[in-house]
Amino acid sequence: MSEVIIQVGAFARAAQLMGRPRRVAVITDDNVAAHYLGPMMRALKGAGHEAVSLSLAPGENSKSLDSYGRILGFLADSGLTRTDTVLALGGGMVGDVAGFAAATYQRGVDLVQVPTSLLACVDSSVGGKTAIDLPQGKNLAGAFWPARLTLIDPLLLRTLPYDHYRDGLAEVVKYAAIRDRALFDLLPYEEVEEEGIIRCCVDIKRAIVARDAHDHGERQLLNFGHTVGHALERLSGYELSHGQGVAVGMAVMARASERLGLCAPGEAGLLIGMMHTLSLPTDCPYGPREIFDAMQADKKRGGQHITLVMMHALGDCRLHPMPMQEALAVVEAGCAP
Amino acid sequence: MSEVIIQVGAFARAAQLMGRPRRVAVITDDNVAAHYLGPMMRALKGAGHEAVSLSLAPGENSKSLDSYGRILGFLADSGLTRTDTVLALGGGMVGDVAGFAAATYQRGVDLVQVPTSLLACVDSSVGGKTAIDLPQGKNLAGAFWPARLTLIDPLLLRTLPYDHYRDGLAEVVKYAAIRDRALFDLLPYEEVEEEGIIRCCVDIKRAIVARDAHDHGERQLLNFGHTVGHALERLSGYELSHGQGVAVGMAVMARASERLGLCAPGEAGLLIGMMHTLSLPTDCPYGPREIFDAMQADKKRGGQHITLVMMHALGDCRLHPMPMQEALAVVEAGCAP
Repeated sequence: MSEVIIQVGAFARAAQLMGRPRRVAVITDDNVAAHYLGPMMRALKGAGHEAVSLSLAPGENSKSLDSYGRILGFLADSGLTRTDTVLALGGGMVGDVAGFAAATYQRGVDLVQVPTSLLACVDSSVGGKTAIDLPQGKNLAGAFWPARLTLIDPLLLRTLPYDHYRDGLAEVVKYAAIRDRALFDLLPYEEVEEEGIIRCCVDIKRAIVARDAHDHGERQLLNFGHTVGHALERLSGYELSHGQGVAVGMAVMARASERLGLCAPGEAGLLIGMMHTLSLPTDCPYGPREIFDAMQADKKRGGQHITLVMMHALGDCRLHPMPMQEALAVVEAGCAP
Repeated sequence: MSEVIIQVGAFARAAQLMGRPRRVAVITDDNVAAHYLGPMMRALKGAGHEAVSLSLAPGENSKSLDSYGRILGFLADSGLTRTDTVLALGGGMVGDVAGFAAATYQRGVDLVQVPTSLLACVDSSVGGKTAIDLPQGKNLAGAFWPARLTLIDPLLLRTLPYDHYRDGLAEVVKYAAIRDRALFDLLPYEEVEEEGIIRCCVDIKRAIVARDAHDHGERQLLNFGHTVGHALERLSGYELSHGQGVAVGMAVMARASERLGLCAPGEAGLLIGMMHTLSLPTDCPYGPREIFDAMQADKKRGGQHITLVMMHALGDCRLHPMPMQEALAVVEAGCAP
């Protein structure tokens, strides 16, 4: 049902890999369009598809109800039917909002993801979560809608600004920390070929998602560093990027895990050292009480309990459901220098 | 998972039937609110639920992206979490748009449907389809999201204007025509108790939906009279109500089925006679070519084929996939007086 192809050069073969000719609505953003929209449209038309395109303004602000409505209107005006396809060509923003439109246009049409950022390659383009932001918070509306095909070509990352690339590296470190000590030992990333690293991350994510698609249990492991990370992003007014928030969040949770005796001494230091090597931040710019209050507003919390992801060893994270008050003690332990 | 309770007096017990106390966001419209919002809010609070409410302007115009965004914002402002509930109190418009918000807020929260129109009781509150309209057409965005609980109290229909009631009767006739000759013989409706009739319709719908939730096959039987009906609604600029469109659509399809030799002589006349008894229209106010062109624009059409529902006998309708051109001949046969 849901296929992932990871291959240097896959982009050039995208149109062929999509199967029988159909109508394809390509959704992208202006930055990505400058590099890749022309070649993609030519390839689609060359392969017999009837291709149309819509480009959004770049940036998280476009992950809105407004863009969602614009995409729906565009799909209707283009005469897309239930047997046609939406192709998301871009990073996380494009994948999330175009994915949500695909999930809901005529109650769901095929989605193809062609991620162009490292973050989208290893995280958002796989696993079926789509979403838009509301003024009240991030990802507050969305659907589970797995892409029929995710096409990952590491060559596309060559045009990615390094700051964005580093955001993706934080997620790579996360996969290593929760499930794969061997991946951790392969990093720092610069010396390794990307295709293998991406495959490693995608395999971990798909295995977890296969066992818990709808985020009721094990999938929450993927939130390692994210609960604190989201709180930090929010506190900074989104000055902190997602990757930076997650990096600090993982450092906080690793320190807390070690100080509370869950993992052996030295493990947190290894994780934090790796993030330094990758130029990712690890010091907490806010106090534990502020962070805790911001966590309380997080949509993932149901009632008076919260599930935190703690590190039992590098490569072995586990879920710890607990009362909210206990989470404050964890954050306090993790924030102390 | 998905429960339907049909009972005179069920409304008074709604708050109890919803189970453990939680936050409940009641979505309704101003007409329904005047009769039922106060009692519902008092009952919810009395049963320990934390209830909030939002009322939309009545009418199909509220089934919009705009209302959808308003509901999402209201749910977020009310602090609804994944373990809380959206309650749709109203007719088809409220159920569809509130249902779509429930399907997508935080990627899906529990939905309770309390239908207040006959159409919503026998059709839209059961089966899991939610939707909003776009400027380009009806139901163009939505999701499959079955209500956790549908609570049908025939007493609520006492305040329904008769024109709206008659729209629901057209759907009752539809169930009889596609699956249940015995139900047909029970009509005209006025002499029979509503609870039994509604139960009959809901059972037919649930049995069909259970075998084809996502509308790839058998569920299309529920479209009997609807493909032509939608075309007529559109041609009239929505002067024709949904029930009127469906009534004429069923008359067209029944006449065509008889003239093409699919059902025995006299069957179409029985169906048409019943609709006269119920004051539903059966004469076609547009020519076959106009209707055919409007059908072409229907979202349910994938490519150059269409599936029409033909009547083989009263109580036995079947799917007939055919090329679009053949559908023109069917409509021509059904429109001739």
